[in-house]
Amino acid sequence: MSGTNAAGSCERWGQHEIVLKGPADGNPFLDVELSATFTQGERSLNVAGFYDGNGTYRVRFMPLEQGEWKYETRSNRNELHGKTGSVTATAPSKGNHGPVRVANKFHFAYADGTPFKQIGTTCYAWVHQGDELETKTLASLKAAPFNKIRMCVFPKWYSFNQVEPKHYPFDGTPPDQWDFTRFNPAFWQHLEHRIGQLRDMNIEADLILFHPYDTGHWRFDRMDAAADDRYLKYLVARLSSFRNVWWSMANEFDFMKTKVDSDWDRYFQIVCDSDPYDHLRGVHNGKRIYDHNKPWVTHASVQNGSAVDDFGRAVLYRDVYYKPIVFDEVEYEGDIPQRWGDLTPEQMTMCFWHATIGGTYCGHGETYNRPDEILWWSKGGTLHGKSPARLAFLRKVMEEGPANGIDPIDKWYDMKTAGKAGEYYLIYFAKETPTEWLFELPKAELAEGMRFEVDVLDTWEMTVTPVPGEFEIVADHRYRYHAKGLPKVKLPGKPWIALRITRVDGAQQFKVEKRSEMAEEMTA
Amino acid sequence: MSGTNAAGSCERWGQHEIVLKGPADGNPFLDVELSATFTQGERSLNVAGFYDGNGTYRVRFMPLEQGEWKYETRSNRNELHGKTGSVTATAPSKGNHGPVRVANKFHFAYADGTPFKQIGTTCYAWVHQGDELETKTLASLKAAPFNKIRMCVFPKWYSFNQVEPKHYPFDGTPPDQWDFTRFNPAFWQHLEHRIGQLRDMNIEADLILFHPYDTGHWRFDRMDAAADDRYLKYLVARLSSFRNVWWSMANEFDFMKTKVDSDWDRYFQIVCDSDPYDHLRGVHNGKRIYDHNKPWVTHASVQNGSAVDDFGRAVLYRDVYYKPIVFDEVEYEGDIPQRWGDLTPEQMTMCFWHATIGGTYCGHGETYNRPDEILWWSKGGTLHGKSPARLAFLRKVMEEGPANGIDPIDKWYDMKTAGKAGEYYLIYFAKETPTEWLFELPKAELAEGMRFEVDVLDTWEMTVTPVPGEFEIVADHRYRYHAKGLPKVKLPGKPWIALRITRVDGAQQFKVEKRSEMAEEMTA
Repeated sequence: MSGTNAAGSCERWGQHEIVLKGPADGNPFLDVELSATFTQGERSLNVAGFYDGNGTYRVRFMPLEQGEWKYETRSNRNELHGKTGSVTATAPSKGNHGPVRVANKFHFAYADGTPFKQIGTTCYAWVHQGDELETKTLASLKAAPFNKIRMCVFPKWYSFNQVEPKHYPFDGTPPDQWDFTRFNPAFWQHLEHRIGQLRDMNIEADLILFHPYDTGHWRFDRMDAAADDRYLKYLVARLSSFRNVWWSMANEFDFMKTKVDSDWDRYFQIVCDSDPYDHLRGVHNGKRIYDHNKPWVTHASVQNGSAVDDFGRAVLYRDVYYKPIVFDEVEYEGDIPQRWGDLTPEQMTMCFWHATIGGTYCGHGETYNRPDEILWWSKGGTLHGKSPARLAFLRKVMEEGPANGIDPIDKWYDMKTAGKAGEYYLIYFAKETPTEWLFELPKAELAEGMRFEVDVLDTWEMTVTPVPGEFEIVADHRYRYHAKGLPKVKLPGKPWIALRITRVDGAQQFKVEKRSEMAEEMTA
Repeated sequence: MSGTNAAGSCERWGQHEIVLKGPADGNPFLDVELSATFTQGERSLNVAGFYDGNGTYRVRFMPLEQGEWKYETRSNRNELHGKTGSVTATAPSKGNHGPVRVANKFHFAYADGTPFKQIGTTCYAWVHQGDELETKTLASLKAAPFNKIRMCVFPKWYSFNQVEPKHYPFDGTPPDQWDFTRFNPAFWQHLEHRIGQLRDMNIEADLILFHPYDTGHWRFDRMDAAADDRYLKYLVARLSSFRNVWWSMANEFDFMKTKVDSDWDRYFQIVCDSDPYDHLRGVHNGKRIYDHNKPWVTHASVQNGSAVDDFGRAVLYRDVYYKPIVFDEVEYEGDIPQRWGDLTPEQMTMCFWHATIGGTYCGHGETYNRPDEILWWSKGGTLHGKSPARLAFLRKVMEEGPANGIDPIDKWYDMKTAGKAGEYYLIYFAKETPTEWLFELPKAELAEGMRFEVDVLDTWEMTVTPVPGEFEIVADHRYRYHAKGLPKVKLPGKPWIALRITRVDGAQQFKVEKRSEMAEEMTA
């Protein structure tokens, strides 16, 4: 495993694996219990082990802090019980910032405090496409702006998706004769390999644990409760030590007709109880949204394209959930006849900007039809769309912006403006084509005499055009501040324009790139 | 009391009062416990009594079903304990439909099944203005379209509101020397009188139990927990037998700095436990919305004007709460400098239409400044605005529409269309000024050959203009149906236009008025 060695040391947020030999007879998946307690000072984590076939048992540990962790195993089998040892967690290597957590209520940061500005994509079944296509997908991701990918554990049987995968999660005979009490280690080893590759590219794996796109073909969508629960525990035992996993209970949970609300609550509970590292947890809806106010939901994972199709909508979800809002499906850039798959690249880019201005996050997907039926949306492969380059531009803007995230400044009144009051503002015009803009900001945190610079961003052409000079503000209105002399900024009269307004005399200096070349480099 | 007589009979959903004499010494509010159990067959209701001063104790009962109810009192005082009797509930009189309940998940109906199409208004402190103004308010309400009024139990000390009321809820000396253990019966009798008058006008009293507009003047906003709890129990004992009361825990609950979230949860619990009739319960927000998913909240009472200022916003709240959504503060029609009080009448009317098209409900308020500082918003008096006449027009449209309420037809895709799929549609254009409309509807519940009529509604001029002929539909698009021959409806090219489209060959016939005179009669 990455970051592990036999001598009992690994980097912080890396993986350390205890490998033990034990019984291979009977059904080890059912019969053998194994876990280990890892202790550092007052802190103690209970980590479940798992059977990996051929008499091999593993306990995988992700040290949350540097320094020495002692462990002791417990098992109902003597040969696995009472094994003790220690692992020393060293400093994380470059690029390892730990797992992503909720930060500042509506945002995310890695465990080391580095902000995580979510620019997600979706390739539901990419790990079930065979090595050639999977390798191509990884190469595409390497060149793309995405730092999160939504992906299913189970394979997918749906329009454009009717191929048998190489591996199946359970022992048995395809398509639907399975022993749900026996897992297939080869499937899981393959999945882990891919998650590890994503981790090494700094991409979060938003793992979708259940989905309805099986429709009874393999019957993974309609296992009984005992099988569901065993599956979840096995999955969490194998995967939770990957720092880049997120748990998404489902895609379109409400479209799974054999499950009821209490099932979803139970799945969350099992994942909560089984995961010693408290990875992010969500559940994605079809038509009916889960109650994201429930305490085990870390962030609201929402399918609703309309919420980011215009101003003033995305922000409403913040006020009801008080958690990060991620629009994990806003329809897809593409050209298929289904109306959820025909966004223009301009619309897909606009969705991300609306989400950003609403203080929320967005997910990308692509459904250009191809003769080979390889649509990025589900199979991965090659990105054909024009939005990814624009999302790279947005990501750069976000990463140059406030570390704590972009929030509405005057919610319910000014739908176009977001940022960090008194320091940093983004104003987005979407489809509007203004030719000028009167310098004007909502008053929160403003005081007379503050000075600002303005950049005109073309979110489609990916250019940054600094406006000459500075703007010094005066309080001349009950709710808004203008600049001295009421100067107006000339705008190009095109759609997809945004403004970036940064304080120049404040404590925090934003290091923003002013040259348009930056954007040109990124044009796909 | 209305609907009551000494012989032990009252109408269903009327009030029957048991009057008992008991101790007047000590502090009867604290020392004396009194309740009665009312029984009819299997059903049993526990009804708290209350002390009304001068040695008089009352237990007020609202029979939920017709027929005989037996009762027996319980008390820690012999003279009040073990009193038995019965009351026979007769058929409700005309106009008495019982309390309002949630119906069809997102809507309301009276207990007898009559739909309740909420058109609310707001006069926070109207019962604290003295008889002259209060009488004027009642006269205004009589001529207005409102069937619900939001009103505070406690008086209000705020801009435009700095007068001492005639009555105070507690015994003591104004402004802030109160014995919170002793209630002032005169205050409560006056409040009850007003609630009864509203009931007799078929207006629901959405009683606001706490509010922050005291700012320490009387200190009713900062009583301790014991006083809060006693207050709630006394209030519910006195008022719950009024069929027209709703419980609103607060206006702008989050602006009450001395209360924390667990206080609000507790208030809800006390009201739930104390109210044998299960009246509607909500809580209204300032900047931070309460978690309306909590089980004791019957409907989401939301302050957010922006949610009904454009398409596609109001509907989002339905999907997160799965309860009726009532926008109980969307700013006010008026002309004061505060930006929450300067809506044009056109805007106020538009808010209601946006709410309706979103499958939600809206509240009115009015803040025209007057030399006498009598703003309807808070004090009542006279309505000066132009929106009420338009709201009467809307109410008529709603009442002629689907009994089960107006719901989105193709949520997240078609933001302008709502109604009942296959039977009845409203399409609203808000500020847009189309000159024609291609007959086109979302496909849900539609089939080839169905026939429809179209009315053009001018929501501002309050006219209904029938379009000649019928429209027979054909399935000619994946998601939408058109009419044969692709006919277009001519529209006036003005803002505030809506279309009403009703099925003419279906099971349900909508009795809609086609003549414009209807509207003209209502023009204020």
